[in-house]
Amino acid sequence: MTSETLTRPELAPAPVEFGTLYGEVQQYYAHQMQLFDQHDAERWAGTFTEDAVFSVPTLDEPVRGRAGLAANVRRNKHQQARSGEQLRHWIGMLDLDPQPDGTLHTRCYALVYLTPRGGDARVHRFCVMEDVLVRSRGKWRTRYRLVTRDDLA
Amino acid sequence: MTSETLTRPELAPAPVEFGTLYGEVQQYYAHQMQLFDQHDAERWAGTFTEDAVFSVPTLDEPVRGRAGLAANVRRNKHQQARSGEQLRHWIGMLDLDPQPDGTLHTRCYALVYLTPRGGDARVHRFCVMEDVLVRSRGKWRTRYRLVTRDDLA
Amino acid sequence: MTSETLTRPELAPAPVEFGTLYGEVQQYYAHQMQLFDQHDAERWAGTFTEDAVFSVPTLDEPVRGRAGLAANVRRNKHQQARSGEQLRHWIGMLDLDPQPDGTLHTRCYALVYLTPRGGDARVHRFCVMEDVLVRSRGKWRTRYRLVTRDDLA
Repeated sequence: MTSETLTRPELAPAPVEFGTLYGEVQQYYAHQMQLFDQHDAERWAGTFTEDAVFSVPTLDEPVRGRAGLAANVRRNKHQQARSGEQLRHWIGMLDLDPQPDGTLHTRCYALVYLTPRGGDARVHRFCVMEDVLVRSRGKWRTRYRLVTRDDLA
Repeated sequence: MTSETLTRPELAPAPVEFGTLYGEVQQYYAHQMQLFDQHDAERWAGTFTEDAVFSVPTLDEPVRGRAGLAANVRRNKHQQARSGEQLRHWIGMLDLDPQPDGTLHTRCYALVYLTPRGGDARVHRFCVMEDVLVRSRGKWRTRYRLVTRDDLA
Repeated sequence: MTSETLTRPELAPAPVEFGTLYGEVQQYYAHQMQLFDQHDAERWAGTFTEDAVFSVPTLDEPVRGRAGLAANVRRNKHQQARSGEQLRHWIGMLDLDPQPDGTLHTRCYALVYLTPRGGDARVHRFCVMEDVLVRSRGKWRTRYRLVTRDDLA
């Protein structure tokens, strides 16, 4: 990635205390993951920057840009409609590292829970998620995401 | 429900930043759920408004008011004493939506973990929880709760 | 423990709102637990006070002080290298109770997830964790920790 192709972070409107920022970012992830689990493809893709790169071990190569991200969610929707499985993504243990350039580096744990139709919920996967977040048009958005899975480590 | 019968939200003492509010509400849920898991029926019921409505798929009809809520917790206590199972409720992915009237609409995920006596902990249920919170006598309280379960969807 | 042997809490630099403090403490736990899961023994031990006492049911007696804490993490590292199991610790439902002396009493839930090499992630243990946190050299640190396990209750 060359820096020219990246969404540049905006200056935050005013400095906020770390604990306040922490709550904002938790809200961001909660909303983003609920959109994902509801297969709301367009709104979910909108929580990323236009030039976002999303790297996850279940895909052969990283997804680049919102159209690709949205297409991926629509594919998940069809797969889950066929399988009758409800997947839920749960983010926690958020370690937030604000950078001098105004971006946020985050490292958190991501659990995937699966409930088969009429069956018992269970843990599906344990992942570690590393993001670069930037402020863009007044909102935090993901510019880069790397997901790794413990079962493939 | 007519608006006359509902606990009216108080004006907050001073405007707080979103991230600060987010932490307050997380604390509220952590405390509320720990009281529930400890079968502290009266104090748990006190985290709801007097006129609260609690709708959950394991009950035939919604519970209304604190006396009914407390009775429900005492019933859980006796059931778990018999079964030797420890249930734990875990809230996360809190999506917080403050309303113009001072109430908070929340949508979050709720996991139930179960540990049988001397056995291994396991995921029991995956639920989605939608609340209306109001400020009443200086504290956030639940006025309305709707719980849905993925295994019954 | 006599009070003379304990790390004394510092005065906080300025009063912070509860919700802001809540975010700070969540960050503290996220960072501490990620260091633990990465077997970063020295940095993990540094998130405790020099005179910390750590009581957990898998150890015959409480661990006292940073050298003992670090040694314990190194032992975990070797055990997990042999077994091929990845353990992950997840803190949630944080109930934060600030004390008049500037310390924080916390009670939270702690889940342990286990992923065997090439296998499926699963819940391993459900624990309750009670801490005393103090501010020391500008950072929150754990002075006392008591972990209990639901399967041993």
